[in-house]
Amino acid sequence: MPLVQVTMLQGRTADQKRKIAQRITDTMVEEAGARREAIVVTFLEVSKESYASGGVLMADKQPT
Amino acid sequence: MPLVQVTMLQGRTADQKRKIAQRITDTMVEEAGARREAIVVTFLEVSKESYASGGVLMADKQPT
Amino acid sequence: MPLVQVTMLQGRTADQKRKIAQRITDTMVEEAGARREAIVVTFLEVSKESYASGGVLMADKQPT
Amino acid sequence: MPLVQVTMLQGRTADQKRKIAQRITDTMVEEAGARREAIVVTFLEVSKESYASGGVLMADKQPT
Amino acid sequence: MPLVQVTMLQGRTADQKRKIAQRITDTMVEEAGARREAIVVTFLEVSKESYASGGVLMADKQPT
Amino acid sequence: MPLVQVTMLQGRTADQKRKIAQRITDTMVEEAGARREAIVVTFLEVSKESYASGGVLMADKQPT
Repeated sequence: MPLVQVTMLQGRTADQKRKIAQRITDTMVEEAGARREAIVVTFLEVSKESYASGGVLMADKQPT
Repeated sequence: MPLVQVTMLQGRTADQKRKIAQRITDTMVEEAGARREAIVVTFLEVSKESYASGGVLMADKQPT
Repeated sequence: MPLVQVTMLQGRTADQKRKIAQRITDTMVEEAGARREAIVVTFLEVSKESYASGGVLMADKQPT
Repeated sequence: MPLVQVTMLQGRTADQKRKIAQRITDTMVEEAGARREAIVVTFLEVSKESYASGGVLMADKQPT
Repeated sequence: MPLVQVTMLQGRTADQKRKIAQRITDTMVEEAGARREAIVVTFLEVSKESYASGGVLMADKQPT
Repeated sequence: MPLVQVTMLQGRTADQKRKIAQRITDTMVEEAGARREAIVVTFLEVSKESYASGGVLMADKQPT
Protein backbone atom coordinates (compact mmCIF):
# COMPACT_ATOMS: atom_id res chain seq x y z
CA MET A 1 0.00 0.00 0.00
CA PRO A 2 2.64 2.49 -0.84
CA LEU A 3 1.93 6.17 -1.03
CA VAL A 4 4.17 8.07 -3.38
CA GLN A 5 4.32 11.84 -3.20
CA VAL A 6 6.12 13.68 -5.98
CA THR A 7 7.12 17.30 -5.33
CA MET A 8 8.17 19.09 -8.51
CA LEU A 9 8.05 22.38 -10.36
CA GLN A 10 4.80 23.39 -12.01
CA GLY A 11 4.48 23.01 -15.71
CA ARG A 12 4.25 19.31 -16.47
CA THR A 13 1.27 18.33 -18.61
CA ALA A 14 -1.48 15.95 -17.60
CA ASP A 15 -0.01 13.44 -19.99
CA GLN A 16 3.38 13.60 -18.30
CA LYS A 17 1.74 13.05 -14.93
CA ARG A 18 -0.32 10.19 -16.38
CA LYS A 19 2.81 8.39 -17.55
CA ILE A 20 4.73 9.09 -14.35
CA ALA A 21 1.86 7.71 -12.24
CA GLN A 22 1.64 4.60 -14.43
CA ARG A 23 5.34 3.85 -14.32
CA ILE A 24 5.75 4.51 -10.60
CA THR A 25 2.75 2.28 -9.93
CA ASP A 26 4.18 -0.47 -12.12
CA THR A 27 7.46 -0.15 -10.25
CA MET A 28 5.81 -0.55 -6.85
CA VAL A 29 3.84 -3.58 -8.05
CA GLU A 30 6.84 -5.28 -9.63
CA GLU A 31 9.58 -4.41 -7.15
CA ALA A 32 7.74 -4.05 -3.84
CA GLY A 33 4.99 -6.60 -4.36
CA ALA A 34 2.31 -4.02 -3.66
CA ARG A 35 -1.30 -4.45 -4.74
CA ARG A 36 -1.92 -2.16 -7.70
CA GLU A 37 -5.27 -0.83 -6.45
CA ALA A 38 -3.72 0.20 -3.16
CA ILE A 39 -1.01 2.43 -4.62
CA VAL A 40 -1.57 6.17 -4.56
CA VAL A 41 0.60 8.69 -6.39
CA THR A 42 0.16 12.40 -5.69
CA PHE A 43 1.84 15.41 -7.24
CA LEU A 44 2.61 18.58 -5.31
CA GLU A 45 3.54 21.24 -7.81
CA VAL A 46 5.36 24.33 -6.67
CA SER A 47 6.39 27.53 -8.38
CA LYS A 48 9.98 28.55 -9.11
CA GLU A 49 9.76 30.87 -6.13
CA SER A 50 8.90 27.99 -3.85
CA TYR A 51 11.74 25.63 -4.64
CA ALA A 52 15.39 26.22 -3.79
CA SER A 53 18.46 24.08 -4.20
CA GLY A 54 21.85 25.04 -2.83
CA GLY A 55 20.14 27.96 -1.11
CA VAL A 56 19.03 29.58 -4.38
CA LEU A 57 15.42 29.80 -5.58
CA MET A 58 14.81 28.23 -8.98
CA ALA A 59 13.46 31.64 -9.99
CA ASP A 60 16.93 33.12 -9.44
CA LYS A 61 18.99 30.51 -11.27
CA GLN A 62 20.69 31.34 -14.51
CA PRO A 63 19.99 29.00 -17.35
CA THR A 64 23.10 26.88 -17.96
CA MET B 1 1.63 18.15 19.57
CA PRO B 2 0.41 16.23 16.62
CA LEU B 3 0.56 17.60 13.12
CA VAL B 4 -2.09 16.24 10.82
CA GLN B 5 -1.74 16.71 7.08
CA VAL B 6 -4.71 15.86 4.90
CA THR B 7 -4.08 15.41 1.17
CA MET B 8 -7.31 15.33 -0.84
CA LEU B 9 -8.92 16.39 -4.07
CA GLN B 10 -9.88 20.02 -4.50
CA GLY B 11 -13.47 21.01 -4.12
CA ARG B 12 -14.36 20.72 -0.46
CA THR B 13 -15.92 23.84 1.03
CA ALA B 14 -14.53 25.87 3.88
CA ASP B 15 -17.29 24.49 6.04
CA GLN B 16 -16.28 20.93 5.30
CA LYS B 17 -12.69 21.73 6.18
CA ARG B 18 -13.85 23.50 9.34
CA LYS B 19 -15.68 20.40 10.53
CA ILE B 20 -12.88 18.04 9.54
CA ALA B 21 -10.35 20.15 11.45
CA GLN B 22 -12.60 20.25 14.51
CA ARG B 23 -13.25 16.53 14.59
CA ILE B 24 -9.64 15.51 13.93
CA THR B 25 -8.52 17.87 16.66
CA ASP B 26 -11.09 16.44 19.08
CA THR B 27 -9.86 12.97 18.19
CA MET B 28 -6.25 13.83 18.94
CA VAL B 29 -7.19 15.42 22.27
CA GLU B 30 -9.40 12.55 23.36
CA GLU B 31 -7.45 9.57 22.04
CA ALA B 32 -3.84 10.75 22.07
CA GLY B 33 -3.92 13.06 25.08
CA ALA B 34 -2.60 15.97 23.03
CA ARG B 35 -3.00 19.58 24.11
CA ARG B 36 -5.66 21.17 21.91
CA GLU B 37 -3.73 24.38 21.25
CA ALA B 38 -0.76 22.41 19.99
CA ILE B 39 -2.59 20.49 17.30
CA VAL B 40 -2.23 21.67 13.72
CA VAL B 41 -4.30 20.38 10.81
CA THR B 42 -3.36 21.32 7.26
CA PHE B 43 -5.05 20.54 3.96
CA LEU B 44 -3.13 19.97 0.74
CA GLU B 45 -5.62 20.04 -2.08
CA VAL B 46 -4.69 18.60 -5.44
CA SER B 47 -6.42 18.51 -8.81
CA LYS B 48 -7.75 15.37 -10.47
CA GLU B 49 -4.68 15.41 -12.69
CA SER B 50 -2.43 15.27 -9.65
CA TYR B 51 -3.87 12.28 -7.86
CA ALA B 52 -3.70 8.70 -9.10
CA SER B 53 -4.79 5.44 -7.57
CA GLY B 54 -4.05 2.08 -9.10
CA GLY B 55 -1.90 3.88 -11.62
CA VAL B 56 -4.79 5.90 -13.07
CA LEU B 57 -5.28 9.65 -12.66
CA MET B 58 -8.57 10.63 -11.05
CA ALA B 59 -9.14 12.74 -14.17
CA ASP B 60 -9.18 9.56 -16.25
CA LYS B 61 -11.50 7.47 -14.09
CA GLN B 62 -14.98 6.66 -15.27
CA PRO B 63 -17.74 7.48 -12.86
CA THR B 64 -19.05 4.25 -11.36
CA MET C 1 -9.43 9.40 -1.44
CA PRO C 2 -7.89 11.38 1.31
CA LEU C 3 -4.50 10.57 2.70
CA VAL C 4 -4.02 11.59 6.31
CA GLN C 5 -0.54 11.72 7.78
CA VAL C 6 -0.21 12.16 11.53
CA THR C 7 3.19 13.24 12.87
CA MET C 8 3.44 12.85 16.64
CA LEU C 9 5.75 11.90 19.47
CA GLN C 10 6.52 8.22 20.00
CA GLY C 11 4.80 6.40 22.79
CA ARG C 12 1.18 5.97 21.80
CA THR C 13 -0.10 2.41 21.99
CA ALA C 14 -1.46 0.40 19.11
CA ASP C 15 -4.89 0.80 20.62
CA GLN C 16 -4.60 4.56 20.60
CA LYS C 17 -3.55 4.49 16.97
CA ARG C 18 -6.40 2.09 16.17
CA LYS C 19 -8.96 4.50 17.60
CA ILE C 20 -7.40 7.54 15.99
CA ALA C 21 -7.40 5.84 12.59
CA GLN C 22 -11.05 4.80 13.01
CA ARG C 23 -12.24 8.24 14.04
CA ILE C 24 -10.27 10.13 11.40
CA THR C 25 -11.59 7.73 8.76
CA ASP C 26 -15.17 8.20 10.01
CA THR C 27 -14.63 11.95 9.86
CA MET C 28 -13.45 11.86 6.25
CA VAL C 29 -16.39 9.65 5.22
CA GLU C 30 -18.99 11.76 6.99
CA GLU C 31 -17.66 15.26 6.35
CA ALA C 32 -15.77 14.94 3.07
CA GLY C 33 -17.86 12.29 1.37
CA ALA C 34 -14.84 10.08 0.83
CA ARG C 35 -15.11 6.35 0.17
CA ARG C 36 -14.07 4.51 3.31
CA GLU C 37 -11.89 1.94 1.53
CA ALA C 38 -9.91 4.70 -0.17
CA ILE C 39 -8.85 6.50 3.00
CA VAL C 40 -5.34 5.94 4.27
CA VAL C 41 -4.07 7.09 7.66
CA THR C 42 -0.37 6.89 8.46
CA PHE C 43 1.53 7.71 11.63
CA LEU C 44 5.05 9.12 11.64
CA GLU C 45 6.35 8.87 15.16
CA VAL C 46 9.35 10.93 16.19
CA SER C 47 11.45 11.08 19.33
CA LYS C 48 11.57 14.03 21.74
CA GLU C 49 14.87 14.99 20.15
CA SER C 50 13.24 15.22 16.74
CA TYR C 51 10.35 17.56 17.52
CA ALA C 52 10.68 21.21 18.49
CA SER C 53 8.11 23.88 19.12
CA GLY C 54 8.99 27.49 19.70
CA GLY C 55 12.57 26.60 18.83
CA VAL C 56 12.97 24.18 21.75
CA LEU C 57 13.25 20.40 21.43
CA MET C 58 10.61 18.49 23.36
CA ALA C 59 13.52 16.74 25.09
CA ASP C 60 14.56 20.08 26.58
CA LYS C 61 11.15 21.27 27.79
CA GLN C 62 10.43 21.45 31.48
CA PRO C 63 7.28 19.68 32.56
CA THR C 64 4.65 22.28 33.41
CA MET D 1 14.39 18.52 -9.47
CA PRO D 2 11.68 16.25 -8.28
CA LEU D 3 11.57 14.91 -4.78
CA VAL D 4 9.83 11.58 -4.44
CA GLN D 5 8.78 10.34 -1.03
CA VAL D 6 7.61 6.75 -0.72
CA THR D 7 5.66 5.79 2.41
CA MET D 8 5.30 2.03 2.79
CA LEU D 9 5.28 -0.80 5.27
CA GLN D 10 8.56 -1.93 6.76
CA GLY D 11 10.15 -5.08 5.48
CA ARG D 12 11.43 -4.36 1.99
CA THR D 13 15.08 -5.25 1.45
CA ALA D 14 17.81 -2.85 0.48
CA ASP D 15 17.81 -4.44 -2.94
CA GLN D 16 14.12 -3.74 -3.40
CA LYS D 17 14.66 -0.11 -2.41
CA ARG D 18 17.66 0.09 -4.76
CA LYS D 19 15.57 -1.03 -7.71
CA ILE D 20 12.62 1.19 -6.80
CA ALA D 21 14.88 4.23 -6.53
CA GLN D 22 16.50 3.44 -9.88
CA ARG D 23 13.24 2.97 -11.72
CA ILE D 24 11.52 6.00 -10.20
CA THR D 25 14.56 8.10 -11.07
CA ASP D 26 14.57 6.79 -14.63
CA THR D 27 10.87 7.63 -14.85
CA MET D 28 11.41 11.20 -13.73
CA VAL D 29 14.29 11.68 -16.19
CA GLU D 30 12.42 10.18 -19.12
CA GLU D 31 8.90 11.49 -18.51
CA ALA D 32 9.45 14.76 -16.67
CA GLY D 33 12.72 15.85 -18.22
CA ALA D 34 14.39 16.15 -14.84
CA ARG D 35 18.14 16.14 -14.39
CA ARG D 36 19.14 12.79 -12.94
CA GLU D 37 21.51 14.20 -10.31
CA ALA D 38 18.79 16.44 -8.95
CA ILE D 39 16.27 13.69 -8.23
CA VAL D 40 15.92 12.52 -4.65
CA VAL D 41 13.94 9.46 -3.58
CA THR D 42 13.29 8.82 0.11
CA PHE D 43 11.56 5.95 1.85
CA LEU D 44 9.52 6.36 5.02
CA GLU D 45 8.86 2.92 6.40
CA VAL D 46 6.12 2.42 8.94
CA SER D 47 5.00 -0.53 11.02
CA LYS D 48 1.70 -2.37 10.58
CA GLU D 49 0.41 -0.49 13.61
CA SER D 50 1.12 2.83 11.91
CA TYR D 51 -0.70 2.33 8.64
CA ALA D 52 -4.46 2.05 8.25
CA SER D 53 -6.67 1.76 5.22
CA GLY D 54 -10.44 1.87 5.38
CA GLY D 55 -10.09 2.75 9.05
CA VAL D 56 -8.38 -0.52 9.96
CA LEU D 57 -4.72 -0.88 10.98
CA MET D 58 -2.72 -3.23 8.80
CA ALA D 59 -1.90 -5.08 12.03
CA ASP D 60 -5.60 -5.91 12.41
CA LYS D 61 -6.31 -7.06 8.88
CA GLN D 62 -7.03 -10.72 8.18
CA PRO D 63 -4.94 -12.25 5.48
CA THR D 64 -7.11 -12.77 2.42
CA MET E 1 21.43 15.93 1.70
CA PRO E 2 18.66 17.35 3.78
CA LEU E 3 15.27 18.12 2.33
CA VAL E 4 13.45 20.90 4.13
CA GLN E 5 9.74 21.39 3.55
CA VAL E 6 8.13 24.54 4.90
CA THR E 7 4.33 24.59 5.18
CA MET E 8 2.98 28.08 5.80
CA LEU E 9 0.17 30.46 5.00
CA GLN E 10 0.12 32.10 1.59
CA GLY E 11 1.22 35.67 1.28
CA ARG E 12 4.97 35.75 1.77
CA THR E 13 6.89 37.51 -0.97
CA ALA E 14 9.52 35.95 -3.18
CA ASP E 15 12.09 37.95 -1.28
CA GLN E 16 10.99 36.49 2.03
CA LYS E 17 11.20 33.00 0.59
CA ARG E 18 14.61 33.80 -0.89
CA LYS E 19 15.97 34.79 2.51
CA ILE E 20 14.36 31.88 4.31
CA ALA E 21 15.85 29.43 1.81
CA GLN E 22 19.28 31.00 2.17
CA ARG E 23 19.29 30.97 5.94
CA ILE E 24 17.90 27.45 6.27
CA THR E 25 20.49 26.23 3.78
CA ASP E 26 23.27 27.99 5.70
CA THR E 27 21.99 26.37 8.88
CA MET E 28 22.08 22.88 7.38
CA VAL E 29 25.61 23.42 6.04
CA GLU E 30 26.96 24.83 9.29
CA GLU E 31 25.15 22.69 11.83
CA ALA E 32 24.54 19.41 10.02
CA GLY E 33 27.62 19.31 7.81
CA ALA E 34 25.51 18.94 4.69
CA ARG E 35 26.82 19.75 1.22
CA ARG E 36 25.28 23.03 0.11
CA GLU E 37 24.39 21.85 -3.41
CA ALA E 38 22.50 18.87 -2.04
CA ILE E 39 20.10 20.86 0.15
CA VAL E 40 16.60 21.42 -1.13
CA VAL E 41 14.08 23.77 0.46
CA THR E 42 10.47 23.73 -0.69
CA PHE E 43 7.51 25.85 0.35
CA LEU E 44 3.96 24.55 0.50
CA GLU E 45 1.68 27.53 0.85
CA VAL E 46 -1.87 27.03 2.05
CA SER E 47 -4.84 29.36 2.39
CA LYS E 48 -6.38 30.42 5.70
CA GLU E 49 -9.13 27.90 5.07
CA SER E 50 -6.59 25.10 4.82
CA TYR E 51 -4.71 25.60 8.09
CA ALA E 52 -6.15 25.07 11.55
CA SER E 53 -4.60 25.24 14.98
CA GLY E 54 -6.42 24.25 18.12
CA GLY E 55 -9.22 22.98 15.91
CA VAL E 56 -9.97 26.43 14.44
CA LEU E 57 -9.28 27.45 10.84
CA MET E 58 -7.03 30.48 10.51
CA ALA E 59 -9.87 32.03 8.49
CA ASP E 60 -12.06 31.92 11.60
CA LYS E 61 -9.58 33.36 14.10
CA GLN E 62 -10.14 36.78 15.53
CA PRO E 63 -7.21 39.13 15.26
CA THR E 64 -5.64 39.50 18.68
CA MET F 1 2.51 29.22 12.03
CA PRO F 2 5.00 27.52 9.81
CA LEU F 3 5.68 23.83 10.02
CA VAL F 4 9.17 22.84 8.99
CA GLN F 5 9.94 19.21 8.24
CA VAL F 6 13.57 18.23 7.81
CA THR F 7 14.30 14.87 6.14
CA MET F 8 17.92 13.82 6.54
CA LEU F 9 20.22 10.87 7.10
CA GLN F 10 20.42 9.39 10.57
CA GLY F 11 23.38 10.17 12.73
CA ARG F 12 23.07 13.78 13.79
CA THR F 13 23.33 14.36 17.53
CA ALA F 14 20.66 15.88 19.72
CA ASP F 15 22.82 18.96 19.96
CA GLN F 16 22.95 19.36 16.21
CA LYS F 17 19.16 19.04 16.03
CA ARG F 18 18.82 21.52 18.91
CA LYS F 19 20.83 24.13 17.03
CA ILE F 20 19.11 23.47 13.72
CA ALA F 21 15.68 23.86 15.35
CA GLN F 22 16.74 27.10 17.03
CA ARG F 23 18.15 28.66 13.90
CA ILE F 24 15.29 27.61 11.63
CA THR F 25 12.83 28.98 14.19
CA ASP F 26 14.75 32.26 14.41
CA THR F 27 14.69 32.44 10.62
CA MET F 28 10.93 31.99 10.45
CA VAL F 29 10.37 34.64 13.14
CA GLU F 30 12.70 37.17 11.56
CA GLU F 31 12.00 36.62 7.87
CA ALA F 32 8.39 35.39 7.78
CA GLY F 33 7.01 37.29 10.76
CA ALA F 34 5.78 34.10 12.37
CA ARG F 35 5.00 33.84 16.07
CA ARG F 36 7.79 31.89 17.74
CA GLU F 37 5.50 29.69 19.83
CA ALA F 38 3.60 28.58 16.74
CA ILE F 39 6.59 27.26 14.83
CA VAL F 40 7.14 23.52 14.76
CA VAL F 41 10.29 21.83 13.44
CA THR F 42 10.35 18.07 12.98
CA PHE F 43 13.13 15.76 11.87
CA LEU F 44 12.54 12.61 9.84
CA GLU F 45 15.72 10.61 9.90
CA VAL F 46 16.27 7.89 7.35
CA SER F 47 18.95 5.26 6.86
CA LYS F 48 21.44 5.20 3.99
CA GLU F 49 19.31 2.50 2.41
CA SER F 50 16.28 4.78 2.42
CA TYR F 51 17.72 7.81 0.68
CA ALA F 52 18.77 7.96 -2.96
CA SER F 53 20.02 10.78 -5.11
CA GLY F 54 20.60 10.46 -8.82
CA GLY F 55 19.02 7.03 -8.59
CA VAL F 56 21.70 5.64 -6.26
CA LEU F 57 21.15 4.76 -2.59
CA MET F 58 23.44 6.60 -0.20
CA ALA F 59 24.49 3.14 1.00
CA ASP F 60 25.92 2.43 -2.45
CA LYS F 61 27.82 5.67 -2.97
CA GLN F 62 31.61 5.67 -2.97
CA PRO F 63 33.17 8.21 -0.68
CA THR F 64 34.64 10.97 -2.79
